[in-house]
Amino acid sequence: MDYVAGVDVGGTHTKIALGERDGGILRQTRIQPNVRGTFTDLAEAVASVLREMQSAAGGTLAAIGIGNPGFTDRRTGVTVGGAPNVPCLHGNSLSRYLGTRWGVPAFADNDGTCAAAGELAWGAGRESSNFLIATLGTGIGGGLVLNGRIVRGARGFAGEVGHFCVQPEGFACVCGGRGCFEQYASATAILRLYQAKRDRRGLSVDRELGAEGVLAAAETGDILALQTVEEAARAIAQVFGTVTNLLNLDACIIGGGLSLAGDLLLRVVREKVADYTLPLFTDGVRVVRAELRNDAGVLGAAALAYTGVSEGKASPLTPTGS
Amino acid sequence: MDYVAGVDVGGTHTKIALGERDGGILRQTRIQPNVRGTFTDLAEAVASVLREMQSAAGGTLAAIGIGNPGFTDRRTGVTVGGAPNVPCLHGNSLSRYLGTRWGVPAFADNDGTCAAAGELAWGAGRESSNFLIATLGTGIGGGLVLNGRIVRGARGFAGEVGHFCVQPEGFACVCGGRGCFEQYASATAILRLYQAKRDRRGLSVDRELGAEGVLAAAETGDILALQTVEEAARAIAQVFGTVTNLLNLDACIIGGGLSLAGDLLLRVVREKVADYTLPLFTDGVRVVRAELRNDAGVLGAAALAYTGVSEGKASPLTPTGS
Repeated sequence: MDYVAGVDVGGTHTKIALGERDGGILRQTRIQPNVRGTFTDLAEAVASVLREMQSAAGGTLAAIGIGNPGFTDRRTGVTVGGAPNVPCLHGNSLSRYLGTRWGVPAFADNDGTCAAAGELAWGAGRESSNFLIATLGTGIGGGLVLNGRIVRGARGFAGEVGHFCVQPEGFACVCGGRGCFEQYASATAILRLYQAKRDRRGLSVDRELGAEGVLAAAETGDILALQTVEEAARAIAQVFGTVTNLLNLDACIIGGGLSLAGDLLLRVVREKVADYTLPLFTDGVRVVRAELRNDAGVLGAAALAYTGVSEGKASPLTPTGS
Repeated sequence: MDYVAGVDVGGTHTKIALGERDGGILRQTRIQPNVRGTFTDLAEAVASVLREMQSAAGGTLAAIGIGNPGFTDRRTGVTVGGAPNVPCLHGNSLSRYLGTRWGVPAFADNDGTCAAAGELAWGAGRESSNFLIATLGTGIGGGLVLNGRIVRGARGFAGEVGHFCVQPEGFACVCGGRGCFEQYASATAILRLYQAKRDRRGLSVDRELGAEGVLAAAETGDILALQTVEEAARAIAQVFGTVTNLLNLDACIIGGGLSLAGDLLLRVVREKVADYTLPLFTDGVRVVRAELRNDAGVLGAAALAYTGVSEGKASPLTPTGS
């Protein structure tokens, strides 16, 4: 049986899946490679697990798709910037490494774009041809589909919704800008906003509490947690509504780890999105959770491999001067 | 000789041009029809001028393109909303009216989208495949090109950049939202911002002064006018930078009447756009004036006619229930 591999490289976990044409997952695993070591360490850790998974699955691995954080040069698979949490990727191409090793076509793209590709192939894209997905995790990534096709822009970097300015005089962002979406609705931001509210009242915050914990506290009626969720939801609604006006979207999708934490966030975003959307557009846009849940990225990397092969695209195996 | 007609319907002026394949204008005129009367009054005023222009030009009119304010159903040419300044368009199709009268294919789209089509065919699109044009006039319109093609979105309404939220707690907008781009950088907004600054100092404003006058005053060193231009430029830079991050654009274009008023606005926008753009994207994006100047809309309507014919698209002549 033929299948493809999808690899979703993250700052903490890297997910690897063997995926079938219909979006089924043959095998899936999650590793914690040392992303602060050398690129070869990371690449070998992925290769070794992939080899084991393939042995166990049997059959033929037809292609490999990689979802990278930051900005990936799609021709070469090389990370050219924007991946501070996986520094060893910079200047290197995991798709070239694995593609050469296996002798199969290999493709790489941004992880948010992969999530969009996954939803397009096997998730919300079955009902929508014009959508934005925002993946809410440690940071915020994203991907865009218009007219049933992934939007890539001039250099392949489109969909970078984490640095969408939502408050021109707002919080400073690591990117050098101000008021970026990521500073209001990522897991990091939600935790920071909640802590600030507790601090102002002299209340401590459990060290183990993550953003999921804040969402859970809001569900049980914790007022400060509820206010935090309202603020994050307002930022999400602003981005969703504004982009809907700009691109006449028919769906906005919440993906990433935070999309799994109960229904409250989704419910509040739905309430608020009309505040930022032209009346004629409001009825035409659905706000939904990623159907592939937190697997949108790794399945999307697999979708990327299928699409690349079916479109007869060359894989980025040719060595470059990087 | 074959040529097409482009019609750019506006709240004050309606422009009509006979355009050639290479973007040349055979003839062009501007009329001031009564847009508050009946639709037939407007349509007949346009038809009568078009007939005269055709007689004078000789040759064959091959197709008609219409740029409408607000939201146009592209299948039928019917205006379905968002054109408060030309109320008689609502529920009616000028493209169907003129197409039937002339017995030629006729196409209609939003005026900002037409401006994008014009720049794509004969203007900035010669050097750029991924751009946003914002047309700054009484209101703000816009159009988007990605991967060398016009972006239309789910219902054909994409590019509506006038209601992009730039200040979530900002000025109320006629659309029901808050802090819309149109409230900060349209001709109306620039005049209002300037007047407010003068009012606070007990200074009067010349009744005849338009937004162009404010820009001219800024060029000569009027401090309050300069501050106004700074504010408008900051809003433009925010929209350009944010959309560049989202769509990885290679150009942002200032069009519409305000683009003609000196270089100051363009210069200040260029200065500020990096504040809102990811470092990796800043070098890749040019901020320019519409090459077709204020004719982008009417030429774009002509481009629409050429594109529709060359793509073999049916024109919206079939009567519908509207």
